[in-house]
Amino acid sequence: MGRLLLRCPDSHGIIAAVSAFLADAGANIVSLDQHSTAPEDGTFVQRAIFHLPGLTAAVDDLQQRFGATVAEKFGMDYRFAEAAKPKRVAIMVSKTDHCLLDLLWRNRRGELEMTVAMVISNHADLAEQVRPFGVPFFHIPANKDIRAEAEQRQLQLLCGNVDLVVLARYMQIITGDFIDALGVPLINIHHSFLPAFIGAAPYQRARDRGVKLIGATAHYVTEVLDEGPIIEQDVVRVDHTHSVTDLVRLGADVERAVLSRAVQWHCQDRVLRVAGETIVF
Amino acid sequence: MGRLLLRCPDSHGIIAAVSAFLADAGANIVSLDQHSTAPEDGTFVQRAIFHLPGLTAAVDDLQQRFGATVAEKFGMDYRFAEAAKPKRVAIMVSKTDHCLLDLLWRNRRGELEMTVAMVISNHADLAEQVRPFGVPFFHIPANKDIRAEAEQRQLQLLCGNVDLVVLARYMQIITGDFIDALGVPLINIHHSFLPAFIGAAPYQRARDRGVKLIGATAHYVTEVLDEGPIIEQDVVRVDHTHSVTDLVRLGADVERAVLSRAVQWHCQDRVLRVAGETIVF
Amino acid sequence: MGRLLLRCPDSHGIIAAVSAFLADAGANIVSLDQHSTAPEDGTFVQRAIFHLPGLTAAVDDLQQRFGATVAEKFGMDYRFAEAAKPKRVAIMVSKTDHCLLDLLWRNRRGELEMTVAMVISNHADLAEQVRPFGVPFFHIPANKDIRAEAEQRQLQLLCGNVDLVVLARYMQIITGDFIDALGVPLINIHHSFLPAFIGAAPYQRARDRGVKLIGATAHYVTEVLDEGPIIEQDVVRVDHTHSVTDLVRLGADVERAVLSRAVQWHCQDRVLRVAGETIVF
Amino acid sequence: MGRLLLRCPDSHGIIAAVSAFLADAGANIVSLDQHSTAPEDGTFVQRAIFHLPGLTAAVDDLQQRFGATVAEKFGMDYRFAEAAKPKRVAIMVSKTDHCLLDLLWRNRRGELEMTVAMVISNHADLAEQVRPFGVPFFHIPANKDIRAEAEQRQLQLLCGNVDLVVLARYMQIITGDFIDALGVPLINIHHSFLPAFIGAAPYQRARDRGVKLIGATAHYVTEVLDEGPIIEQDVVRVDHTHSVTDLVRLGADVERAVLSRAVQWHCQDRVLRVAGETIVF
Repeated sequence: MGRLLLRCPDSHGIIAAVSAFLADAGANIVSLDQHSTAPEDGTFVQRAIFHLPGLTAAVDDLQQRFGATVAEKFGMDYRFAEAAKPKRVAIMVSKTDHCLLDLLWRNRRGELEMTVAMVISNHADLAEQVRPFGVPFFHIPANKDIRAEAEQRQLQLLCGNVDLVVLARYMQIITGDFIDALGVPLINIHHSFLPAFIGAAPYQRARDRGVKLIGATAHYVTEVLDEGPIIEQDVVRVDHTHSVTDLVRLGADVERAVLSRAVQWHCQDRVLRVAGETIVF
Repeated sequence: MGRLLLRCPDSHGIIAAVSAFLADAGANIVSLDQHSTAPEDGTFVQRAIFHLPGLTAAVDDLQQRFGATVAEKFGMDYRFAEAAKPKRVAIMVSKTDHCLLDLLWRNRRGELEMTVAMVISNHADLAEQVRPFGVPFFHIPANKDIRAEAEQRQLQLLCGNVDLVVLARYMQIITGDFIDALGVPLINIHHSFLPAFIGAAPYQRARDRGVKLIGATAHYVTEVLDEGPIIEQDVVRVDHTHSVTDLVRLGADVERAVLSRAVQWHCQDRVLRVAGETIVF
Repeated sequence: MGRLLLRCPDSHGIIAAVSAFLADAGANIVSLDQHSTAPEDGTFVQRAIFHLPGLTAAVDDLQQRFGATVAEKFGMDYRFAEAAKPKRVAIMVSKTDHCLLDLLWRNRRGELEMTVAMVISNHADLAEQVRPFGVPFFHIPANKDIRAEAEQRQLQLLCGNVDLVVLARYMQIITGDFIDALGVPLINIHHSFLPAFIGAAPYQRARDRGVKLIGATAHYVTEVLDEGPIIEQDVVRVDHTHSVTDLVRLGADVERAVLSRAVQWHCQDRVLRVAGETIVF
Repeated sequence: MGRLLLRCPDSHGIIAAVSAFLADAGANIVSLDQHSTAPEDGTFVQRAIFHLPGLTAAVDDLQQRFGATVAEKFGMDYRFAEAAKPKRVAIMVSKTDHCLLDLLWRNRRGELEMTVAMVISNHADLAEQVRPFGVPFFHIPANKDIRAEAEQRQLQLLCGNVDLVVLARYMQIITGDFIDALGVPLINIHHSFLPAFIGAAPYQRARDRGVKLIGATAHYVTEVLDEGPIIEQDVVRVDHTHSVTDLVRLGADVERAVLSRAVQWHCQDRVLRVAGETIVF
């Protein structure tokens, strides 16, 4: 199976042009999803799934011909991907295990189209839990005094080796320099339904405010804290009987579910970024 | 806006062929949704939304040409529809008002793409509540002794005048003869999450069984009671403090929400029936 | 049925003392709910439901004796209420009908333990829709230029006549002076899951932020906008296909459900305020 | 902390009598929950949480005195329990890991008030995954030809050693003889929202019926398959794009969440059985 992802200014005839190109190339279109952000002057995005025998050999040629015959005409950003090629993923984590273990466990079950290249942590606590999954665990101490050095060591491990970095409750600040140098997307899980409770201690603040729902948000990481494009969110009902400890426990279930869905969708090339938000097909 | 709905045995090249036809006809495709029920020998269904100036005048010609050039080749059932043409709907109801009023109220707000041609009830109780909405209310007594006669009178009102009949808690049996003679789809709301609690008194039985969730199901009506294709379902949490009366009250909210969504989707031509189930785009 | 609501500093023996008092008074305790806000130095709140023949005649005496024998000892705020005595409620509204109609409709069905004393609106638009419910509708124009005068007219209608004021999408600012002069609780519905999107245009801002859930919050009104104790919240899932108009439509269903639940719980004396939050029994 | 669970025919004065007993015994009541199954001739159940210094030493005496002074008068079944004493639990499982691992993982985090005494499986597959949790794993082959013998071996391990048996997707029939001989409660997870899809292959049947929600149900085990008192249920939304494999994957998340909640509540003595259902406080 192949996937074609594209984005361009909306105009007439895009769907027909893409369909015709794929048909001419001998591909059978399995599904097409598309969205335009506005009736006038919107941005058009599309995800096509197609079957083409010998795709691996043909993909470079396909890419080139699509560029010349379709993409240029419509001013498209586009990308071909092979479904059979799992994403290489690094998971960064601090001390809490729930998001990390859920990703590793789901991947072992074959739910996520990824290979976990490594786990990086600023603490050694979780090494033992990662071992049974056969994934390399790297302990790189990090805090604000040694941030630059720590990021250098992380980048040495990551660059060229991964297609995605998942922050599975990694409790250190990520600098803009790190994001730029990394060059691949980062997905973070924040333990509130953004934009509520941006920043630190969201469960404590939820408790203080007396909310009746708590939530979690998976989003792409940008330079501005908790402001990146949201991929997925969910909530769980709470009440006055729940202490902050209870909220942490109940929220952990939402966090791991939300993050796992976001990672799954990303690895299936179902998430497209337009301006500050995501289209999830 | 125009809509093209189609269904055929799955094979290569359908999406490209349909896209090419619409493009040749001068239509701009706004969205395409499609589904195949199985990787091999499945049934393919598609819904295309397109913009074509002068659609109303062109639709008959379009229909004919599509039949000749595309549909025949792939063995398609297909149908063109105009988004601007709301469905004509009859609502049949007995004594409870919640589903009826929610449909009338949503339609007055412009949420549903329908005109309510009439309300038919086997009781006079709700006439007063329908009046403010300016919709004709017909009281046709019905029970098992006068079923044939009642259905005759109902058919005289309905046939030729409506595109859809909604059973909004209509507590009489609908015969196969009635369904055949009517010739348009019927949507029913059943007050349980089917297939649990098929038949009478689902809330009482839910209470007796001690379930922790109750639900409602909107489905197309077929000859077999509560066995038609399901369009939408939802549930609400209940506990030991709830009496049957409470379940009826809590369930009413689920029923009206589920039925309204099902009617909305049907009127937007988003629901396709394949074998015993629905594809909702 | 009688209800006893109380609040005091937590200490040993409260539950036993209250139970003993009610038993001595000849009351049969049907249910007891209680909560302490902290293990040490918390605030204790309780709601007792009891059956006492001749309650109406006895309630003043009960109130007095409870004060002398139990409340004083534990430093309690307390209140006896009769379940049979529905709350007198005023609904204030501007132009949108969904919250207002849902309350009126539920009350007609007998779901809410209240009588609607009046509807007050700063617009005349909804007069027609209120009429079938047989509730007085008062049109009192209001805007920031005539706020003081409008509030005076509102207070003349409200004071002494109602036990609760519900702001069912009333789009004018409520001043602290108004709240003080009114002397009974106000419940407001805000169209976001607070504390996200405090203030104006929450659906537009939700759309701009690309959130995957939108919500609504019912809360008691205090002087600080959208900061009062939260009674109930809920959310609905949205995605990139939804315009702001869609969010308004989908959100309306959440708003009316959340507000109706909050009003129902308040009228059943199930909501107790402690510090800035609510305990809902 | 101590817990008192009781059940008796409803009558006047129970709450006051229990409160007075506990107060006289020097206990401070932290919370009282109660429920009566019917206004007339109902069954009354109650759960009291209390603080009593030196509880462990006093509990036998307490038990005896409560029997003599309160329980006899009202015809009560009752039981005192110590919160500090975790339940001893055996988990029985076949080949799928999700329910088992979720219980082990939550218990390691301290979320469940239990100690896992052993895991028993009719397959050896999961031994490896259990090892890191430091719990004994016993492989006892079982199928219908050797059922009696297998149950004998299981009973030898279980009897006297556990307070609860959890069937975490154990795919063998449990006989009435086994239940009787075991003498402690069993909790099972069924992979449908009962009473829909009782019996085998519920996901396949859900797919065939075209339901829009799938669910899971945790219930106490009785002799009649899938008919025991329901403790907890939940559902997840599905649509036409989901294959049976997808339903199995999505359902697994619901199963593990529902089972873990049921086990947690049971271990906290929050679940009382009355007739064929549960009261969950």
